[in-house]
Amino acid sequence: YGKNTIKFLRLHKEGKKDFVKEVEVCTHLRLTSAQEYLDGNNSLVIPTDTIKNIVLVLAKKNGIPTIEQFAIDICKHFMTTFCQVVYVKTYVQEVPWQRLQENGVPHIHSFICAPEGIRFCEAEQCRNGPLVVSAGIKDLKLMKTTMSGFEGFYKNEHTTLPERHDRILCGELFCKWSYGENKDFDFDCIWNKIRECILEAFAGPPDCGEYSPSYQKTVNSIQMHVLSKVSQVQIIETMLNNTFYNVVDMKNLGLTNDKEVLVPVETPYGSCACTLARK
Amino acid sequence: YGKNTIKFLRLHKEGKKDFVKEVEVCTHLRLTSAQEYLDGNNSLVIPTDTIKNIVLVLAKKNGIPTIEQFAIDICKHFMTTFCQVVYVKTYVQEVPWQRLQENGVPHIHSFICAPEGIRFCEAEQCRNGPLVVSAGIKDLKLMKTTMSGFEGFYKNEHTTLPERHDRILCGELFCKWSYGENKDFDFDCIWNKIRECILEAFAGPPDCGEYSPSYQKTVNSIQMHVLSKVSQVQIIETMLNNTFYNVVDMKNLGLTNDKEVLVPVETPYGSCACTLARK
Amino acid sequence: YGKNTIKFLRLHKEGKKDFVKEVEVCTHLRLTSAQEYLDGNNSLVIPTDTIKNIVLVLAKKNGIPTIEQFAIDICKHFMTTFCQVVYVKTYVQEVPWQRLQENGVPHIHSFICAPEGIRFCEAEQCRNGPLVVSAGIKDLKLMKTTMSGFEGFYKNEHTTLPERHDRILCGELFCKWSYGENKDFDFDCIWNKIRECILEAFAGPPDCGEYSPSYQKTVNSIQMHVLSKVSQVQIIETMLNNTFYNVVDMKNLGLTNDKEVLVPVETPYGSCACTLARK
Amino acid sequence: YGKNTIKFLRLHKEGKKDFVKEVEVCTHLRLTSAQEYLDGNNSLVIPTDTIKNIVLVLAKKNGIPTIEQFAIDICKHFMTTFCQVVYVKTYVQEVPWQRLQENGVPHIHSFICAPEGIRFCEAEQCRNGPLVVSAGIKDLKLMKTTMSGFEGFYKNEHTTLPERHDRILCGELFCKWSYGENKDFDFDCIWNKIRECILEAFAGPPDCGEYSPSYQKTVNSIQMHVLSKVSQVQIIETMLNNTFYNVVDMKNLGLTNDKEVLVPVETPYGSCACTLARK
Repeated sequence: YGKNTIKFLRLHKEGKKDFVKEVEVCTHLRLTSAQEYLDGNNSLVIPTDTIKNIVLVLAKKNGIPTIEQFAIDICKHFMTTFCQVVYVKTYVQEVPWQRLQENGVPHIHSFICAPEGIRFCEAEQCRNGPLVVSAGIKDLKLMKTTMSGFEGFYKNEHTTLPERHDRILCGELFCKWSYGENKDFDFDCIWNKIRECILEAFAGPPDCGEYSPSYQKTVNSIQMHVLSKVSQVQIIETMLNNTFYNVVDMKNLGLTNDKEVLVPVETPYGSCACTLARK
Repeated sequence: YGKNTIKFLRLHKEGKKDFVKEVEVCTHLRLTSAQEYLDGNNSLVIPTDTIKNIVLVLAKKNGIPTIEQFAIDICKHFMTTFCQVVYVKTYVQEVPWQRLQENGVPHIHSFICAPEGIRFCEAEQCRNGPLVVSAGIKDLKLMKTTMSGFEGFYKNEHTTLPERHDRILCGELFCKWSYGENKDFDFDCIWNKIRECILEAFAGPPDCGEYSPSYQKTVNSIQMHVLSKVSQVQIIETMLNNTFYNVVDMKNLGLTNDKEVLVPVETPYGSCACTLARK
Repeated sequence: YGKNTIKFLRLHKEGKKDFVKEVEVCTHLRLTSAQEYLDGNNSLVIPTDTIKNIVLVLAKKNGIPTIEQFAIDICKHFMTTFCQVVYVKTYVQEVPWQRLQENGVPHIHSFICAPEGIRFCEAEQCRNGPLVVSAGIKDLKLMKTTMSGFEGFYKNEHTTLPERHDRILCGELFCKWSYGENKDFDFDCIWNKIRECILEAFAGPPDCGEYSPSYQKTVNSIQMHVLSKVSQVQIIETMLNNTFYNVVDMKNLGLTNDKEVLVPVETPYGSCACTLARK
Repeated sequence: YGKNTIKFLRLHKEGKKDFVKEVEVCTHLRLTSAQEYLDGNNSLVIPTDTIKNIVLVLAKKNGIPTIEQFAIDICKHFMTTFCQVVYVKTYVQEVPWQRLQENGVPHIHSFICAPEGIRFCEAEQCRNGPLVVSAGIKDLKLMKTTMSGFEGFYKNEHTTLPERHDRILCGELFCKWSYGENKDFDFDCIWNKIRECILEAFAGPPDCGEYSPSYQKTVNSIQMHVLSKVSQVQIIETMLNNTFYNVVDMKNLGLTNDKEVLVPVETPYGSCACTLARK
């Protein structure tokens, strides 16, 4: 197979206002034949330069109403234009530019990059198969300063970790969910709702939070909450890279450190992941 | 000289609410003698491990009300405790954790990392000299989709760049300003006001913006605006790394691209910088 | 599932000489039950801290004769010690430290990091299944300044790329091969032989080279050469990330550039990959 | 001031053999006036695009015999062509491509990237001043597995570090030296000799090494050795970023770890630096 990646900016105006999307598009094609590998026969090969041109032309003609719609357009174009393509997958991710505001007034053409999690999507199709759409969020850094522990785990002669019922939970979340076969969804609205669900399930109620007995359980809570609240989601895959923190032992320095000063434990770092599907 | 860097988390409670600062502290010392270099005599050397302990102990004892105050505390500690130290500089930067909100209600212990520019500061002192404080913002990514040009520049036989009166202005801003000798400032309030001034000067009025004839002029406008609005700032240093964008030529593809699709020009990339002081 | 990563140094002496391996080990476990996700019941969970201890203890007891043997040891330990583990995969990669030489004399304890490709391996086992070993090289940056082209590719209205019969071929190679079920192999010797095969197939004979009609064909030649020369390899997966270079057009500057000055084309960049198995 | 960075490839042939240099050039200019900042008057501004063209044209016309010569050519060009330039500094660094060998035979056109330290240089000139040349090496990762300690340091109530007479010394070395005013030097030959001196001073004799009582002393030994062996060097600046390693305590695990298994201490990490000039 072959993959290629293109970065560009799509600008347009609505009334006086400028709109902007900065995207990175990665297109992945599989062809009917592998003759270019075996014989060096390039006659069916679509050069990366051509793929770049197609992506830019589609951006110019259709705009990027949502990254999901744009990924769908690209998939469809390759399937209908090139009969040598048997499989296409398009990944699109968006740089999180947000309109500047001055005293609550949105600016007509100035933007700031505010990366509280990167939005991405994928559209995928095999020849004669359905066009399947998924979306996700990544690089979402979250922390709970309390209401997290890890107890009752398996122990043997190699165990040195103490049980803890009040630790820091800190990590980077990756979530990807599938909408199944492409339908006429409001991708922006659903994505924002799912992001909200993720934060709710991670944090719990604002006034008291919710206890997390492990990274694993928090991952599962996020998945269950999204599946229960957003009917369009068929499958959800979640991964949490955890950063562990140790309370610094200050006894030698004559002080009692009541979970006030903590240092990151850089090795080992871990991650837990789970995929959950609707029955 | 020697430098060392420490990352840690400082947590504390106010009422039921948790507060958190994740900081990176870099301490830079110069000693009265260089005998450890010349003779391998380590008797005046303060090990990095000791420096780490001092920083953590100060964080534990004093907390981190502002990163500026914390940098000042560290400087003072080294100057008063170690007579072999002739110069100390402390750099502190803060990971931009923000409290999560649910429907406008702030969460008691959950945070999200939202990096719209990194806040940093420096405190610096020579023995028998004043303690000088500076602060700044870095990694602030900004864009203007219009109202930016570059015309009337010097031309010779090596010039191929066309004049442009409607280009994209996009870049990463670094600003560092000095408060002069340490006084009892409200560092949080001043920092937020300066951040606001920077965005105002970059963007211009929300309804119409302000034309930028060059990256250089925009840098100067930011500096002038900050100096005029914030009397505590003595000197301001500003650097703008620019990302250039080219409008894709689509003539070969049978299309007219009216500044709708642009690709980044990755080489050359440039930056312009300027330092401006109050008279 | 869960993954975790540990970095450490293993030192030992042979005679007067010091030997050193700096490795990164990533262990990936799947358990019989997912109760920790569903119920927050941690009783079968092996903490990352315990996994770290096991890896360090095995390094201490067995040393790291080859990274492959070490990965095998770790797999076996988890399978025989924990009945709740149904699958284990261990990835090990080695920092390329090489002994310093002075006028051809190897130094007894000084090393330099010389990263001409990173060696890695994987050992993998399902309960009741065979232990399968693979190895590889990654981050191997290679270039051919000539004897590379790309012609006869598919063309339509979106094609703008010209045919070229003398371009630069430059990229980063990733190769991973499977030895199949674990046997008593000389992993060091085989790995070095495969590395040599890769370079031979990439470059061709030293005096004249070999023409590459595409990145794809070069990928295939590497795979065919390894499979034909190294009988222990069962399957080989190869990926080549390509960096394209454009000859700078200097007509406007009054010069003819005969493939002398080239700039990297940063967008699009692509990669091609292929997996080939012995019949 | 303004800076800009360009990356490109310079190819040429000698007989049948291809030669290649991949360089990154950063040019830094200061002009007689700052009117472009103050008034937005661009009439003296040399666009980055023009600077790029000049660098590429010089590479085409003169080639890159050494990066030092190329940096000198660029400096001279700006000083003689543009009377509005009052200061120019050119930094050039080289990607370490090395010719492939098969059984000792050098390949005519195939190269491998082998980064055992990056070579760089700087040429610098003020109007009416001399052209000053410096060169250096960076990202040189070195390790001594023994013959390194740290004892007799300053102690107080914040000291927890034990004295050690047999630790690992591991770090990344940066060295930059000045040749003073530009003369007709054999830059390749001198650079290789200095690199050799650095390794010699770091490691000591191959059969027994040399004890290092601190990072600081090792930095000084390197500088003294270079100054004594290479008469062209006027000033030498050296920085060593150190990576500390801790011997893992395995008592809880029932084992004695005799400096066999070590983990990196990621916080704090430090660096020491020194500048030494010939009297």
